[in-house]
Amino acid sequence: MRPQERCRRSGASVKEKGFKSLTRVEEAKKKFFSLLEHLGRIETAPLSESDGRIAGEDVYAPRPAPHYRRAAMDGFAVKASDTFGASESSPNRMKVGDAVSPGVAAPVHTGGSVPDEADAVLKIEDTRKTGDDLEVYAPLAPGDNVSPVGEDVNEGDLLIEKGSRIGPSHLGLLRSLGIESLKLSPKPTVAVIPTGEELVSPGEEPGPGEAVQSNGIMIAGCVRRWGGEPEEREVLSDRPEDLRSALNSSLEESDAVVFIGGSSVGRRDRIIEVLEDEGEVLVHGVAVQPGKPAALALIGDTPVLVLPGYPVAALAVAYFFLKSLIQYLIGDEGEDKTATVKLKKKISSKLGSLSLVRVKVEDGEAYPIRVAGSGVLSSVTRSDGFVLVPEDSEGVAAGKSVELHYWR
Amino acid sequence: MRPQERCRRSGASVKEKGFKSLTRVEEAKKKFFSLLEHLGRIETAPLSESDGRIAGEDVYAPRPAPHYRRAAMDGFAVKASDTFGASESSPNRMKVGDAVSPGVAAPVHTGGSVPDEADAVLKIEDTRKTGDDLEVYAPLAPGDNVSPVGEDVNEGDLLIEKGSRIGPSHLGLLRSLGIESLKLSPKPTVAVIPTGEELVSPGEEPGPGEAVQSNGIMIAGCVRRWGGEPEEREVLSDRPEDLRSALNSSLEESDAVVFIGGSSVGRRDRIIEVLEDEGEVLVHGVAVQPGKPAALALIGDTPVLVLPGYPVAALAVAYFFLKSLIQYLIGDEGEDKTATVKLKKKISSKLGSLSLVRVKVEDGEAYPIRVAGSGVLSSVTRSDGFVLVPEDSEGVAAGKSVELHYWR
Repeated sequence: MRPQERCRRSGASVKEKGFKSLTRVEEAKKKFFSLLEHLGRIETAPLSESDGRIAGEDVYAPRPAPHYRRAAMDGFAVKASDTFGASESSPNRMKVGDAVSPGVAAPVHTGGSVPDEADAVLKIEDTRKTGDDLEVYAPLAPGDNVSPVGEDVNEGDLLIEKGSRIGPSHLGLLRSLGIESLKLSPKPTVAVIPTGEELVSPGEEPGPGEAVQSNGIMIAGCVRRWGGEPEEREVLSDRPEDLRSALNSSLEESDAVVFIGGSSVGRRDRIIEVLEDEGEVLVHGVAVQPGKPAALALIGDTPVLVLPGYPVAALAVAYFFLKSLIQYLIGDEGEDKTATVKLKKKISSKLGSLSLVRVKVEDGEAYPIRVAGSGVLSSVTRSDGFVLVPEDSEGVAAGKSVELHYWR
Repeated sequence: MRPQERCRRSGASVKEKGFKSLTRVEEAKKKFFSLLEHLGRIETAPLSESDGRIAGEDVYAPRPAPHYRRAAMDGFAVKASDTFGASESSPNRMKVGDAVSPGVAAPVHTGGSVPDEADAVLKIEDTRKTGDDLEVYAPLAPGDNVSPVGEDVNEGDLLIEKGSRIGPSHLGLLRSLGIESLKLSPKPTVAVIPTGEELVSPGEEPGPGEAVQSNGIMIAGCVRRWGGEPEEREVLSDRPEDLRSALNSSLEESDAVVFIGGSSVGRRDRIIEVLEDEGEVLVHGVAVQPGKPAALALIGDTPVLVLPGYPVAALAVAYFFLKSLIQYLIGDEGEDKTATVKLKKKISSKLGSLSLVRVKVEDGEAYPIRVAGSGVLSSVTRSDGFVLVPEDSEGVAAGKSVELHYWR
């Protein structure tokens, strides 16, 4: 007799006692994201406020760079033919003048404009100047040390692809080409709503059975890092009418809504029934470890996530779904940067669940942090990142290489 | 006859024509950083403004977490001895009441306080409740499903080490423990001063031989990402008196000063002589590719960096020295996150220089981006990161694994 069967025997309390089935992460994402749309809005920002943002359109070069024939060396602009045959032992002799003509070289500095009459730049190290006389010690081919127009970018070249993230080098390149403002994806606003009767406000002293409401600041921090604009709300009790009114006011103001806590199947977990009343709960119960009680819903066209109340579980579900939700909304096509590391100690994980295992890296090798449950947030703060162990695996043996994901 | 010897023959112009010797990066860092001090200042910030900042002191737990004996499951608090011998086929029988006593179980929910009289929590799935009668289907050992006081952190545990970076999980952990403000390392102020007679202001149309001043916004972006507060200055000409007055006003206002351009040994490269007049130039000419003309100086106790004017060279030198300078000033002990990738095509590099090679990653394999000189900033914007090739190497063969550094 399995526990579920016992639950069923007790009649009305079936729903309180466990998930009938868990949805795998990939399946849950497919169900959820297939119904979502990117945010349609685009905003315009000055270049100086674009670092780290996501491009909202393809950006093309309005002019070539360089826009003139540029000297790549300090030296002399010349006709290459005047240097033919020159050597260390038998230098060619030229004159130095203001304009280039046959037999006459004109001084030019790195980055300077090469006169039309010249087709090469002679390095200063390959010359010796005495008054107006110039000895040339090396031959040049036409084009030597001259950067042609468009060497860096041609007019019309794609500079930034829609969906890519702007960095400092883009700022430099765009400014050099005269682009001073950019169309960007907006930052989606995300309402972050902690729930739970046992929670006291930040700064208050919790009694036995109470805890400080601390998931809000953590999830808000994640939202900000991932490119959204968090709206931290006051903690709510578990009363359905409070949950419903918070949901409805958030739907009006926010691009996405995140509830934290109340996602399980206990007596005090009421958010799911509220979401079922107001829209569609697409997934409830996910095959992840930690984070099983997560739920994904759509109310009208607003995505709603319910994260478990235990902090590590909340963080894990946020990594699995909230991060990709924000990226989806803003069209961010970036991928997680990971590192390959060797395991020093074996990782054990739960068969059937995608497990997020906190690891510490020492001397280039990773080991799992002793885990005493999803309430132990210090298992995250002491870790360097996490390793994902797939559903069909019970762990990873010591000595194997794994992909390390960073907390960011 | 090598070029340098020719230069020497021409007498006064020796200094204009090349570096006598180049300092290796590690040697340059040693010379520079051995003379620097961390910023002594510490600032206090509310928790909500601490994400991404560097801790200015060790932080210890002011109380344990959990601070009470916490139920890890929904179910019933019991004396474990009341469950001894219980099984699926032969359940023990108990009563449900408000307080735990021998033979009496009290309901408890996940996260709730376990009464002093109980020493274990019975999972709801292992029970069947009919009115006040409870059937118990599984035995418990004392301690089962009870998180003891301090399971997560004990009072006095080190939560955050001085010099480590604050992340969202730290915010959650600190808030849960009643910590609402933090001592942080200050953001060093860095004056960013572009120089060059050929530069026109952003938004202006450059003529032949001219360029838009675009390194300032790029280096300022880097400073901000690396934890500093950039102060972008107007572009300066190459006149020593202008350079001197900009230097002196920056020394008063900033923790570090960065000049961009004018670092080479040409006729228009005057910043080095100004720095030599005002303080000590520790390194001029570094064995890096690109970025050779970089200089490191100390004026009073203020570090001054001179970056080359070519944008890729400026960026490379910033990565080699400005990033570690900022990290040093704020005591950031974080290390670069890298990824191991296989090379699809060989990398060629210059023997004797530490080379920063821009690479693109496709299908998990990296290949170098065609490099047409350190003026080609699109070689950075099109890349996914860079690979460092050591001084004693001329490149890396295809098929080898390399460490990929990200632009951040």
